[in-house]
Amino acid sequence: MPAALPDSAIYGKLMGDAEIGRLFTDAAEVRALLLVEGALARAQGAAGVIPELSGTFIHRAAMEVQIDPAGLAEGVAESAVIVPALVAAFRKVLDAPEHAPYVHWGATSQDIMDTALALRLRQAIAIMEARLARTIGALGTLAETHAETPMAGRSYGQIAVPTGLGAMVADWGRPLLRHAERLEALKPRLLRVQLAGAAGNLSAMDQGPAIRAALAQALGLHDPGGAWHAQRDSVAEFAAWLTGLSASLAKMGHDMVLLTQTGIGELRLASSGGSSTMPQKQNPVLPSVLVALGRHAAALNAGMQGAAIHGQQRDGAAWFTEWLALPQLVIGTGRALAIATELAEGVVPDAAAMRAGLDPDGLGLIGAEALSFALARHMPRPEAQAEVKALCKRALAERRPLPDLAAEAHPEADLAAAFDPARQLGTAPDEARAFARAAREAASAAD
Amino acid sequence: MPAALPDSAIYGKLMGDAEIGRLFTDAAEVRALLLVEGALARAQGAAGVIPELSGTFIHRAAMEVQIDPAGLAEGVAESAVIVPALVAAFRKVLDAPEHAPYVHWGATSQDIMDTALALRLRQAIAIMEARLARTIGALGTLAETHAETPMAGRSYGQIAVPTGLGAMVADWGRPLLRHAERLEALKPRLLRVQLAGAAGNLSAMDQGPAIRAALAQALGLHDPGGAWHAQRDSVAEFAAWLTGLSASLAKMGHDMVLLTQTGIGELRLASSGGSSTMPQKQNPVLPSVLVALGRHAAALNAGMQGAAIHGQQRDGAAWFTEWLALPQLVIGTGRALAIATELAEGVVPDAAAMRAGLDPDGLGLIGAEALSFALARHMPRPEAQAEVKALCKRALAERRPLPDLAAEAHPEADLAAAFDPARQLGTAPDEARAFARAAREAASAAD
Amino acid sequence: MPAALPDSAIYGKLMGDAEIGRLFTDAAEVRALLLVEGALARAQGAAGVIPELSGTFIHRAAMEVQIDPAGLAEGVAESAVIVPALVAAFRKVLDAPEHAPYVHWGATSQDIMDTALALRLRQAIAIMEARLARTIGALGTLAETHAETPMAGRSYGQIAVPTGLGAMVADWGRPLLRHAERLEALKPRLLRVQLAGAAGNLSAMDQGPAIRAALAQALGLHDPGGAWHAQRDSVAEFAAWLTGLSASLAKMGHDMVLLTQTGIGELRLASSGGSSTMPQKQNPVLPSVLVALGRHAAALNAGMQGAAIHGQQRDGAAWFTEWLALPQLVIGTGRALAIATELAEGVVPDAAAMRAGLDPDGLGLIGAEALSFALARHMPRPEAQAEVKALCKRALAERRPLPDLAAEAHPEADLAAAFDPARQLGTAPDEARAFARAAREAASAAD
Amino acid sequence: MPAALPDSAIYGKLMGDAEIGRLFTDAAEVRALLLVEGALARAQGAAGVIPELSGTFIHRAAMEVQIDPAGLAEGVAESAVIVPALVAAFRKVLDAPEHAPYVHWGATSQDIMDTALALRLRQAIAIMEARLARTIGALGTLAETHAETPMAGRSYGQIAVPTGLGAMVADWGRPLLRHAERLEALKPRLLRVQLAGAAGNLSAMDQGPAIRAALAQALGLHDPGGAWHAQRDSVAEFAAWLTGLSASLAKMGHDMVLLTQTGIGELRLASSGGSSTMPQKQNPVLPSVLVALGRHAAALNAGMQGAAIHGQQRDGAAWFTEWLALPQLVIGTGRALAIATELAEGVVPDAAAMRAGLDPDGLGLIGAEALSFALARHMPRPEAQAEVKALCKRALAERRPLPDLAAEAHPEADLAAAFDPARQLGTAPDEARAFARAAREAASAAD
Repeated sequence: MPAALPDSAIYGKLMGDAEIGRLFTDAAEVRALLLVEGALARAQGAAGVIPELSGTFIHRAAMEVQIDPAGLAEGVAESAVIVPALVAAFRKVLDAPEHAPYVHWGATSQDIMDTALALRLRQAIAIMEARLARTIGALGTLAETHAETPMAGRSYGQIAVPTGLGAMVADWGRPLLRHAERLEALKPRLLRVQLAGAAGNLSAMDQGPAIRAALAQALGLHDPGGAWHAQRDSVAEFAAWLTGLSASLAKMGHDMVLLTQTGIGELRLASSGGSSTMPQKQNPVLPSVLVALGRHAAALNAGMQGAAIHGQQRDGAAWFTEWLALPQLVIGTGRALAIATELAEGVVPDAAAMRAGLDPDGLGLIGAEALSFALARHMPRPEAQAEVKALCKRALAERRPLPDLAAEAHPEADLAAAFDPARQLGTAPDEARAFARAAREAASAAD
Repeated sequence: MPAALPDSAIYGKLMGDAEIGRLFTDAAEVRALLLVEGALARAQGAAGVIPELSGTFIHRAAMEVQIDPAGLAEGVAESAVIVPALVAAFRKVLDAPEHAPYVHWGATSQDIMDTALALRLRQAIAIMEARLARTIGALGTLAETHAETPMAGRSYGQIAVPTGLGAMVADWGRPLLRHAERLEALKPRLLRVQLAGAAGNLSAMDQGPAIRAALAQALGLHDPGGAWHAQRDSVAEFAAWLTGLSASLAKMGHDMVLLTQTGIGELRLASSGGSSTMPQKQNPVLPSVLVALGRHAAALNAGMQGAAIHGQQRDGAAWFTEWLALPQLVIGTGRALAIATELAEGVVPDAAAMRAGLDPDGLGLIGAEALSFALARHMPRPEAQAEVKALCKRALAERRPLPDLAAEAHPEADLAAAFDPARQLGTAPDEARAFARAAREAASAAD
Repeated sequence: MPAALPDSAIYGKLMGDAEIGRLFTDAAEVRALLLVEGALARAQGAAGVIPELSGTFIHRAAMEVQIDPAGLAEGVAESAVIVPALVAAFRKVLDAPEHAPYVHWGATSQDIMDTALALRLRQAIAIMEARLARTIGALGTLAETHAETPMAGRSYGQIAVPTGLGAMVADWGRPLLRHAERLEALKPRLLRVQLAGAAGNLSAMDQGPAIRAALAQALGLHDPGGAWHAQRDSVAEFAAWLTGLSASLAKMGHDMVLLTQTGIGELRLASSGGSSTMPQKQNPVLPSVLVALGRHAAALNAGMQGAAIHGQQRDGAAWFTEWLALPQLVIGTGRALAIATELAEGVVPDAAAMRAGLDPDGLGLIGAEALSFALARHMPRPEAQAEVKALCKRALAERRPLPDLAAEAHPEADLAAAFDPARQLGTAPDEARAFARAAREAASAAD
Repeated sequence: MPAALPDSAIYGKLMGDAEIGRLFTDAAEVRALLLVEGALARAQGAAGVIPELSGTFIHRAAMEVQIDPAGLAEGVAESAVIVPALVAAFRKVLDAPEHAPYVHWGATSQDIMDTALALRLRQAIAIMEARLARTIGALGTLAETHAETPMAGRSYGQIAVPTGLGAMVADWGRPLLRHAERLEALKPRLLRVQLAGAAGNLSAMDQGPAIRAALAQALGLHDPGGAWHAQRDSVAEFAAWLTGLSASLAKMGHDMVLLTQTGIGELRLASSGGSSTMPQKQNPVLPSVLVALGRHAAALNAGMQGAAIHGQQRDGAAWFTEWLALPQLVIGTGRALAIATELAEGVVPDAAAMRAGLDPDGLGLIGAEALSFALARHMPRPEAQAEVKALCKRALAERRPLPDLAAEAHPEADLAAAFDPARQLGTAPDEARAFARAAREAASAAD
């Protein structure tokens, strides 16, 4: 195990996310910070807080200069925050004594860092939205196709009653629709500029609120209308959202691990892993990764939620805790979405195995509940339940099918439907199709 | 330490919540479950799924019967779920063989339990909303009153620059406004009936979706339009909300612990704890409880998020994990809100101590940043910063006030504002008043 | 869900632990605290720190008085700690002005509370040790009995190669042996008196260290040789131990859930739960509870570990966090051990199902690895692996047994052993018997 | 924030650990795996399980070949485990068809990975042991030097009674001594070879147990005497140890943050961070990093403990969860130890500030408890406590020093000692020296 799997040359393709990971490199960090410094200077120049020419100069330079991240390490080791070292390096490379002093004018490190984070989270969210939409779309198609495919519904690992594969797919997909809804609501709370100054009151910046509004406008972020440097609830909310989404995807992964078990085999995965020593094995690798990412997210999130207990106007310990957890939470969730898309698009249900799974021992016990309702037309339900329980026991003891025993004992009753899974699907087809419809609507809304 | 502090006769007043705790007693559990069974029967009777008379009879009886919770323990020990034993006890006490069979018709245990949970969460939420509004109101008043009260802004425990108490109060209050907003959005996703049947497809219930809609209507809950028994994202979302709120309240508690420290003493609490052996001590007990509840919530939530990785159509292990964590999360957050209200209404700022805190060693160092900007009018900002750093060093070495040294060294500059905290409040008063306004608006919207 | 399942009349038998729970009631709390106050007074009396008669009087009274826990609630609500109110109530009920002042002489609340906790943890540990020994014993017997019972080894839910049931049982049992070893090592670090005074230096107690030693002696606890009020590592270590043990038991529960799945059914549980609506179902309820307790413990433990970040000489927030989590962690682990004992003693392996599970589709694929080694005697291993992979593919495509295809293709090779699970058990029987032996040794050491 | 701070060129010096991080690179992973494959082949060759010449050849080659980690990425993306791709690449580069087939003979991927992990953990532990010893040594010296330095003991942030700085340092150091003890005990359980085969029974390896013993011997690891592939308790135990140690170090960091607060300033740090905008500020950066690493560890550990709930003979999801968390837990703890060493060696106590801190408002209230005991020589203790409480109130109301008021009111009593902190140190000097002695003993034992 290398230190960080997503960044590993070996494990990166399994656990990492090239597209989102690109937003969390040293170079991306520096680029985003410079972008914010540049936009700030331009906004201040336009407002006359600093010389307009300096604003323009700094803004342009911020997009063009190359600053070596490694050169900032000493400064970071001393003060933890990257901005002082970056500002010094930037000023130096500017080589323009008349403008350089106006870099980072009246701002504090956290202003630049929080805003640069918001910029990158916006990009990460855009990528996730696309993947979420694609996963939902694939699940919608799958649900529709298999709206009427009967399979065993299982609780506690035990076969309960028949259901439809499409309904199970809806169990995977509907939470994703809700996660999309939650994301939409949290974006304005998360994707905000930070411009607060040393202790939140912009005391060192003339026209602070106007500059903040202009900066927000320039960067395409929201203007929070105040400081939020010590109000970490929205960062925590986003961590919670990532965690919730990871868990919903992990549920899909967990179900896939269960349904691909040898002896069950109701799903086959397009891609699955081989063994180093067992030629016949196909391991549900990607579903297992989904579960691992979901579990890891739940743990990381405990740290993120605690980090919202932020002391006073700035709390180094709490803030650094965010740094340690948030990027891997974003990348992990991004990877989970990519895996989910691949699985949703590539999963191959085995309808025959599903049908076999409805009655693995040939005793027809899955019809027990339905039988009890069928008999309840002829006797009180509690009696019917007792009768069915007795019939089930006999079926198991004598290894004779429940339908046969039931028909013998109750010639008066019409039991055909009870033992036909296709007639026991209940609302499953409707649930599947309703989800498919919602998925299509979400897709067209997203266009 | 008794097993569960909220239920303890000793610790209940400190850590428990009588009002919300009442929703999570054995008796309340039984009552809520019966209420759901009754409403279900009536809905089924009205729709002709069961005899109308049976529906009416069961509905009325469900509100009247007394069932001893202890009598259900054996059944629960065997099957984990309370409903089979409860239904049996209810049928028995009904003493009406013509109606009894129609109790729990076509439903599964989880239907009743999830719906009964939603009923009680609705009540808990109503209580929390009132407390949240009251806390926000008290904080709004506090922020307004102290919009212009200068105090030291502190980062990493170090005095940074002056800010206003009102702005700090806004740091406590604004997240609460956002939590209220989040709660509003999640309610329709959480406060839903569950009517899914054994595996989610209502296969044993005629007119299932219509019954579900009628049940929702009767109970004042939302109709989810499908099953959600295996889609635990909204339960997890609520746990995340409770955790986020607890953390925001814990931040307020943490700040209060810091500001009541001996030698700082900028806040005094209306109620605070004495020591068993030290007569002079007043401990910030309630703020410490806020922090403890916030930390405990973050931990419990890790289990709740993992529980959303729910296997197949029902996963005992995942479901039981919710049972172990959710009630104490609700009660703990409720208690935290009550404490926060009490603290917000009772806290007594010590403006003199705050003023003293702006300059604890009499060297006036808190004006350093402002001085650097004042000097930056006469020299480039980096030079000004270097100059101020040198002056600070001298001030510390010679124990002479920075304002004096600065005035000597820079007679050309106007430094009065730099060393007057009241003129260094920046946007703090505006932030405080903006929050106070938003708090008032929230209050009037809540009316 | 009532507030705290272990205390619930409904859920207590499922999730609670009557024997250990008894140590964590309000009454037990008061009793233990008084016991410590009494022993302290006697030790101080014997040393002449307080009048000897007062020491004897207080000691005897501490064992006899009845103090109503509810009467302490107000005091606790104010100061969080129970001791001031308890001391006041105790002094009052003593009705002996000449002795009463000597109650709690020179001690601080935490001294009494930490020591009283150690007393109760000692009892809880004794109970757990007995259960742990019994579980290990039952697993040892099971492993021995089934040392040669072949079953499918499964990785990623896929059948890998044959193994023996006894070896799987050893996977459950060996960690328990190690947990017993860990517990033995941690006891002297945990079961210690606390006698530290207000800030750890016993400044208000003459002959403090001697009193501490005498108190330890009297209570049968260890003398830590110093204060540990702010050194919470050993409390955290115990929480970690409980968590680790819970996880090991949860692994057993998880395996049992997997092995009782319909269609696999290799284990049957003595006690298992029925369904409210499906007469044929037997749910693995207790194994699911094991998993839930393991997951919940891992979450609670996150809070406990954080609570070891204890500020200065006493940190209310950190300390209260321990109170919120530790009792339920102890009770939950105790319950998990009781369940594990019951499961280990009552589980019924189905050897026929296990045999069937070795070849669920009749294609004999489980022999693939062994076949590759058999063929590797006739060709290089990579070629053998490739050949077996090809044969497996054909077997699946043509639905013909791998043994037949292999025999046809390689008449030169002796393949009998490869396809006989009993000859593929490898070290499984030895591992099973070695564990059984270790379990017996542990049992006789415990006697 | 880059993806993984320890690996970042920017943040690596702050949050990473060059020495330990080197053990968790892609290259180190490959090297360790090859080392294990080589040692295995040699052991098998020596035992005659494979040709001896092949064993020797593979062993030597394993130490010499260069395999590009990036070339393994595709294989890992498919099967998650690195070994199949590595074995294939190794065989290819061997270019020796007569030996190549004997690479990885009868082993499974997890055997190689777990053993390679143990190898690297052994190295990481050796590094940590040295740092732990050095930190303990530095704290011992500090405790000894300041055994008699009075400072305020603080509970709930409130000044309680005087204590000694040396005793506080012992609060930091004694847990470290216990962590060293715990580590010693866990090493034989952790640093073990894994040789289990596909499902734990070595069915594909002749003389399996002998090979395992020889492999352990060759690698300097313990022979577990059986398989532990699905028994993850010892990996979880190590994660718990790392977490516990991180928390103890974070307690030291937290105390340092509190004691360096402006207005308290009782400690000065050798290295502390500047601000980007406030010239006078020195932030306790490294102590804050300690706290952050402690909090992050507690969160990561929740995932690690859950991962011990490992399904059947191999559980991809659980195993991958370990991969995601363990390396950063090791590196983070390593970094925390390095920081702690630096802080322990560099911290500069300010005895004058400590003395001032004993009486920040000049009212002498810190002597209140001692005064109550002094008066208790003249009246019953409860009366004395009431009297002192009244005097404290007057002191605060009249802003007159408590010693003066007490002397006036009680001329009969000798109160000098009560108000002399140096005479109120109690056992603090002894505790400090006892720890210093233990630290020296630990150091000489480590030599």
